[in-house]
Amino acid sequence: MTQIRALVFDVFGTVVDWRNGIAREAAPFLKKWGRTDIDPIAFSDAWRGRYQPSMEEIRSGRRPYCRLDVLHRENLSYVLQYFGIEEAAISEQELVSLNKAWHRLDAWPDVVAALDRLKPHYILGPLSNGNISLMVNLARHAKLPWEVVLGAEITHAYKPSPQAYLRAVEALDLPHAEVCLVAAHNSDLRAARSCGLSTAFVPRPDEYGSHEKADLKADSEWDVIATDFTDLADQLLVGKSA
Amino acid sequence: MTQIRALVFDVFGTVVDWRNGIAREAAPFLKKWGRTDIDPIAFSDAWRGRYQPSMEEIRSGRRPYCRLDVLHRENLSYVLQYFGIEEAAISEQELVSLNKAWHRLDAWPDVVAALDRLKPHYILGPLSNGNISLMVNLARHAKLPWEVVLGAEITHAYKPSPQAYLRAVEALDLPHAEVCLVAAHNSDLRAARSCGLSTAFVPRPDEYGSHEKADLKADSEWDVIATDFTDLADQLLVGKSA
Repeated sequence: MTQIRALVFDVFGTVVDWRNGIAREAAPFLKKWGRTDIDPIAFSDAWRGRYQPSMEEIRSGRRPYCRLDVLHRENLSYVLQYFGIEEAAISEQELVSLNKAWHRLDAWPDVVAALDRLKPHYILGPLSNGNISLMVNLARHAKLPWEVVLGAEITHAYKPSPQAYLRAVEALDLPHAEVCLVAAHNSDLRAARSCGLSTAFVPRPDEYGSHEKADLKADSEWDVIATDFTDLADQLLVGKSA
Repeated sequence: MTQIRALVFDVFGTVVDWRNGIAREAAPFLKKWGRTDIDPIAFSDAWRGRYQPSMEEIRSGRRPYCRLDVLHRENLSYVLQYFGIEEAAISEQELVSLNKAWHRLDAWPDVVAALDRLKPHYILGPLSNGNISLMVNLARHAKLPWEVVLGAEITHAYKPSPQAYLRAVEALDLPHAEVCLVAAHNSDLRAARSCGLSTAFVPRPDEYGSHEKADLKADSEWDVIATDFTDLADQLLVGKSA
């Protein structure tokens, strides 16, 4: 295997548990607005359900790049309408605060210890569709030891557009194969590989709860296939001093 | 004083000692090529002397943005010619390696401990004219605990162009005054203040050796005026838990 120098991470789903994190903040919001009939997890799923369609407008060129915070805020309006919650009754400040729930997601329990072990040996950073402030705040909240933030706001391209990967590699100024994308989504890895990056798969069977279907296992011979982040670190630290 | 949330740093001169770092790597290069008559410090000063003029081409709009690594490499050619060293005799690989001396500069001795103390309380990152890979490699070499890399490659603008400061603040998505530039150069702070950032001055009387003239002391009422990074941390940590 090529000498990997930098590990870049998909974040939503791979590093952090967006579903329970959003539900945790949706619950008091729904209660306040008298809508305890709505399952906070369903609210979370509906919000995330708008994620790909909203980015597709930008990937397709129909809309210029804007930050994921902006898309999340627009998608929140959509979700409120979907559930019949009157947005006009709610202050923008409260909606912005709820929108920042995406900045306060928890890491999966195996993540932080593994990243701390990997850090002396690899450059670590997110290669996420999240914007810079989202990634910085998330790292502070979830104790993710990033040293650089790559991703959509650097490249003005949303994954899986090739430019999202290519420009991140260019920023690191490394041979493509020395940059390894770590992701729980086979499609993300496929796009990274076609841009020449190395690839590491870590399954997250609980990302969508019982809805998880697509990514229960690696569907290709990725360079590293790990059971979780602990196993990822074990594999990537073979032969390196502790 | 406004609540500061993020500290962003000028790097060359303020955080790292470029003059001695470049001279350290120039010395064996000059010896190898039979030019022990050239003082490595003079070589370092001449190389750095091309820094502002080369960026001015981009700031003025006469040339599109390119990375500082590229400017450093062009400026190296200029310096070789200036000292009468025949560039054509030297492999590009060797010149690229020497050019990356800018990625291997040491921090001033007061820096790392102070940044480690500040890190729990403030977002920390470079706001430098250096490109992303330069900043990442420098951080690894000098143990700088950055969590995000801002600066010219994010903004495609070189300080002191206003966009260099404004786009960095925009990336952090904070009120301008909650972002504080730390720099040893009054002119950098002046430009940051005119963009609404908070400002902190730390003198580096040894940056240019005995040539230092302009920035021996603060020439304005910056929000923080410190004697060194230890004092900067002491002042910024008043009232914060250890």
